[in-house]
This record gives sequence, C-alpha cells and structure tokens, in this order.
Amino acid sequence: MERVAIIGASMTQFGQREGEWIMDLLAEAGEECLEDSGVDASAVDHLYVSNMASGEFEGQTGVPNALAHDLDAMPAYTQRVDQTSSSGGAGIYAAWQSVASGASEMTLLVGGEKMTHRTTGEATDVIASLTHPVEYKHGVTLPSFAGLTARHYLERFDAPRESLGKVAAKNHRNGVDNPHAQFQKEVDLETILESPVVADPLRLYDFCPITDGSAALMCCPESVAQEYTDTYAVISGIDGATDTHVVHEREDPTVMGGVVESGNGAYEMSGLEPDDIDVAELHDMFTILEFLQMEGLGFAEHGEAWKLVEEGYTERETGELPVNTSGGLKSKGHPLGASGVAQGVEIYEQLVGEAGPRQVDAEAGLCCNVGGFGNCVITTIMEAAQ
Amino acid sequence: MERVAIIGASMTQFGQREGEWIMDLLAEAGEECLEDSGVDASAVDHLYVSNMASGEFEGQTGVPNALAHDLDAMPAYTQRVDQTSSSGGAGIYAAWQSVASGASEMTLLVGGEKMTHRTTGEATDVIASLTHPVEYKHGVTLPSFAGLTARHYLERFDAPRESLGKVAAKNHRNGVDNPHAQFQKEVDLETILESPVVADPLRLYDFCPITDGSAALMCCPESVAQEYTDTYAVISGIDGATDTHVVHEREDPTVMGGVVESGNGAYEMSGLEPDDIDVAELHDMFTILEFLQMEGLGFAEHGEAWKLVEEGYTERETGELPVNTSGGLKSKGHPLGASGVAQGVEIYEQLVGEAGPRQVDAEAGLCCNVGGFGNCVITTIMEAAQ
Repeated sequence: MERVAIIGASMTQFGQREGEWIMDLLAEAGEECLEDSGVDASAVDHLYVSNMASGEFEGQTGVPNALAHDLDAMPAYTQRVDQTSSSGGAGIYAAWQSVASGASEMTLLVGGEKMTHRTTGEATDVIASLTHPVEYKHGVTLPSFAGLTARHYLERFDAPRESLGKVAAKNHRNGVDNPHAQFQKEVDLETILESPVVADPLRLYDFCPITDGSAALMCCPESVAQEYTDTYAVISGIDGATDTHVVHEREDPTVMGGVVESGNGAYEMSGLEPDDIDVAELHDMFTILEFLQMEGLGFAEHGEAWKLVEEGYTERETGELPVNTSGGLKSKGHPLGASGVAQGVEIYEQLVGEAGPRQVDAEAGLCCNVGGFGNCVITTIMEAAQ
Repeated sequence: MERVAIIGASMTQFGQREGEWIMDLLAEAGEECLEDSGVDASAVDHLYVSNMASGEFEGQTGVPNALAHDLDAMPAYTQRVDQTSSSGGAGIYAAWQSVASGASEMTLLVGGEKMTHRTTGEATDVIASLTHPVEYKHGVTLPSFAGLTARHYLERFDAPRESLGKVAAKNHRNGVDNPHAQFQKEVDLETILESPVVADPLRLYDFCPITDGSAALMCCPESVAQEYTDTYAVISGIDGATDTHVVHEREDPTVMGGVVESGNGAYEMSGLEPDDIDVAELHDMFTILEFLQMEGLGFAEHGEAWKLVEEGYTERETGELPVNTSGGLKSKGHPLGASGVAQGVEIYEQLVGEAGPRQVDAEAGLCCNVGGFGNCVITTIMEAAQ
C-alpha cells in the first residue's frame, strides 16, 4: 500500500479571536493550507473538520458543509470528526484512512474551535459533558482528575513539585518563538509555583488556557505528493485506542492505557521505536499529562519522566528529545478540535524544515492527542520524505 | 484490495423511547449487533458512532468513549461521525474506510439519536442550526425548502399533488411490516391529502416524525467475514458529495448535486448501473425528496419520478424497484444519526434474506442518505455475497 503524505499545513493565530466565529477560523486555516500546499480547492476529494462542539459553543452545526462552500471545494465529500479534546488527532486518523483506503486522492483536514466568547464556566460545562455522568455528578471534572493524579504521582515516585512546574516553564519558553501561540512569553518557575491553586497540587500555570483557533493539514498518496513538492512528510504510523470511560475504574492512575495502546500500534506500523523519535508534541492540557505520555510512549521508564525533565532531556535546544517545541497546549492554547491538528502541523514543519526559530534536527516525529482524561488517545508518527 | 463485508445488523425499536437516553439506545443496538454477527466485543478494532447532536439534545458528549466502555470493547478506537441528517451514511463511509485502509479488521458502527424528550420547537431549532445562517435568519428552514421545491416540481413537471401523497401512503404500507418502525399503520391517500398544511403544498403526512432510536452494522474484510458466516453482504460502491451550503444558490432546485455526484461515484466503484439495483432505501425526510433521489440516482428521468410512483414501479410487492421497503424515514422514523445506518440495515437484511414479511428478491441494493437539504449526500451500494 502506498504511504500517505502531508504536503501542506497551516495554523491561525491561537488566542482570543474577538468578533470572529468558527466559520471564520476554519476558512482562514483552510485557505492558508490550500495555498501552502499549492492545491486548488477543486482538487480536494475529502474535507474533514475536527470540531468538538460548534453546536454547543455557537449554536451552529453543519460546519463541514459550510466550509466546503466557503472554500469552494464542492462537491468534495465532507464530514465532522468529533473525539472531544482529541478530535484533531482523530481527524488525522480519518484523513489517513480516507487516503489509505483509496477513497480520496487529496484530503484537507481542518480542525477548529471557537470558545472564548463563552464564560469560563460555560466553556468548562461543555467540556465536562464528555465525562461519565456518574463522575461528573459527583463533581469530578477533568482538572480534578489531573490534581488527584498529580498528587498520587508525586508521592508515589518521590518527584518534586518543581518538576511539574518545569514542564510549564519549558513549554512557555518554546511558545515565545511561535508567532501563532496564545501566550508568547516566558514564565519563571517561581511564578508558576506560586500561582493560585486550581486542583491541589496543580496551580493555574499547570493548565492550558481556553482558546479560539484553527489548524489544517493536506494529505494525499505519496505519488501525488511528488507531483506537488519534494519536501513533504509521511504518516508512517498511526493508531487510536480507548481506556475506561469511568476514570476511577482504572487499575493504575499513572498509566493511561490509551496512550500505551495507541503508541504501540503506531510504533508497530512505522517500524520505529521510541529511541527513533527526534521530536514530540504531547497533549499537555495539564502538566502532569506530559509525564504520563512520556512514560506511556516509552520515552521514559514508568515513574521517571520527571527525572528527564529535571535533566533537560526534553529541552528544545539542548535536549535529546525536544517535547512540545510549539509551546504545547500550555502556551500555544487548546482550541479543542484544532489542538491535535496543530500538533501535526508542528511535527510536519519540523520534518520539512519550516519551523523557523523553533527548528530542531528531526527525521521522525510523534504527536499524541488525548481525549477526555485519556478516554481515547491517537498517536501519530511522521517521517521526513526520504 | 479486498472487499468490505457486512456480517451483522441490528436496530432498536424506533419511536418515543420514554425514560431511555442516548447511551441506552446506542448500547442496545450495539449489543444486538455483536450478537447478530457473532463477534465478541474484544474483537472490535474500531467503533464509530453516528450522532448529530447528543450534546445539544441531552447535554452529553463523548458518547463513543462511553459506548466503548458500556460494550466492553476497549481498547477499540472510537470516534463520533457527524454529517447532520446524513451522519449514518457518513458512518457507513467511515466504517468502510477503516476496513478498506487496513486500519481495522472489525468495525462496529452504531448510529443513534435521542430527540423526543425535547419539544418539537427545540428539536427543530437544533436541526435548523445546520442551515446557512443567511437563510436561517430569513426563516427558511428545511421544511420551507421542501415546500418551495415541491411547488416548483409539481408546476414545472405538471405532476399531480397526489403523486407525493402516494409516496407517503406506500411507505406507511411498508412500515406496517416493520416491527421496529415508529408508525406501523397504513394511512390512506385521502387522510394524507387532507392533513394540515405545513409548508404549502406539503402537509403533515409529507414529513417524517421526530424519533428516538439506534441502528448498527458490523463491517470487516471479506476474508474475515467468511470465518463468521456464509451469508453476508459486501459494500461494492460508496461515495459522498456536497452541494452548495446556501441552498438558493443552486441552479436547479429539482436537482440535488450531491445525490447525482455520490450516486455516480458509487455506481462507478461497483461497476453497476441503476438498472442493476433491485431495492433502494431513499431519504424520504420529505416526500418530495424521494422523487429527487429517484431522478438523481438514475432510476427515473428528470421530472418523471412521479410517473413511476403513479405506475406502482416502486411498490414492494409488485414494483420493479421497491423503494423504502423498511417504511422509509416516513413511517420508520428519523432519529438523525441512526437513519442512514438503518437504511443500511434494511438493505443488508434484504440481501441476506432476513427481511421477513418485507423480503423482496434482491442481489444488489442501494441506500442514499441526505444531509441538510442535499448539502451532503452519501450513496452506498451493497451486493449479496457471491
């Protein structure tokens, strides 16, 4: 079977996009991706829109049809992909399947969410609706799970609280060089460690913000890619997996089964191992998640990711495995449906040498997009074209 | 490439399912489909949930994760497929792609919607959110489009108003023999033609009801199907296509471009022609749509579907091409995300000889699922295993 290539990418400014709505954001990213890849809208066969909740946030549904219209991509087939906070990764998987199955020779994936026009309480309510009703009704929301897990992790593995803060500090440092990031500023460790408590031991700076934004990728068979460009990436491994929807049923709160399973699947498909990965985008919706993914994906032993962070292993300029060179969800922002696509945009740009001041030396990259509290996870491995 | 087979199907009672919620309905259909196909939940690789609006209708999102949990199908990958009223057809396409791409060896598709706990006004508001805001704000909803189109069709093609009524009467007759249909009763032409006007010239009986329900299909490669059963169907053709999202921009209101394009794609892929189709499920959300699809799919010349209906061409027991043997959306009901899957269930049952009193003689069947007012359409052709 022919490999699936990525030949173009785009990302809007992430942040508070006042006066702009979901369709504005999706159209902006979609148009830029068409331009970046040199593909005419009429050549698009399938158009996927990763979006969790345009209906709940904005009262508008049918956004894929509206986008096909706005981009003048009709009669391209179109569909919305929702996998809550991992909708973007699920979109990459849908796009990959559309090309790998032969259904589409040119697939445009656009992920996006418009959230900041709602109050934090309203936005949190929409997000919390993805949790199991039993847990939700008892007041256990995603930040609570993160706090409980972080406390357990720090105690069990004798990890210092500072190690979590260092994840946030690193990702904020990386975000300074990402012109599309919501926060392009360094935050020192002291500020992070003294910020207001949200879910003990996690504090404000352990959490990603609420964000508007959109990101896009253009996928096609490798033979078609070569008609457009010499510099492209291929998706060499991709897999998704679920864990229990009732989070408290999991045997070990420090192991996300979906991360492990999807990672194993992606490694097996690509023939690569954790050591072969040169750069990774991990789903740092909460700082503790960066530890759990580093361990679940085999970059660190169980309970030891914090040591690697302390040692600078994940630093962009000096580390062996730069993690979240884009700034991560932490500083780049987390517009739900866009986040997983934006992870893919960063890895693509690193592989084709378009990451500008964030550029690292990379032949293979990985992104891991986490839905819910690990309820569903998609891991994607990309490689630079040989 | 190996063909994609369907080895099992299920459908819950459609109608007003008081006190049951989206998760109850999805789990019921999912469990029955596992049983019908003889597949253990642990063998499911991918689980797709076709659903338009569980968040808007019920305040619950993340239903695919919840269903993977309820069916004990973890770590199966799962995702929600939304394509408004054609979410079910889009789910069949997603399931097909998952198997055809090699990503999944066993894909369970479950479509469902829970709507009747909301008032008709509330439910209509959710559905209307899929239309283009420009048209919606001017008060043009889907029923209005249907009324305008029907008036134009009847005048332009000199078709009698009765011909539309005969579509409803036929589908109600078929529904009598479908134990899962919302309405299992005949309705005579006079009652239909004298029912209250909704969108002139269309009346109450030209419209499908608001419905709760779920339906499911099990898909796998043909070689895997043969390990389970000798009687299965294959998806030999499938394609989806969009038309303008702003409906009034279309050149000819009696031609749905998405029907034509997706039909052509499905015929080309299967190598079949309209004459080869023995039974069809068409998206009769409004009676006029059955005419437009018969013509767009090549079963009738443009402007002449009404004549075939008058002649009895689409009757189940005596017609050359039985249409909506299940009762159609008209009598079976239209739980948005379930409808396209339920179309597939009917065609599958016809092809494997499990349609009971509705059984017709069929080697090849087609279903056409329409999103919005033809904004996106998916056409699927299935054939009985040779």
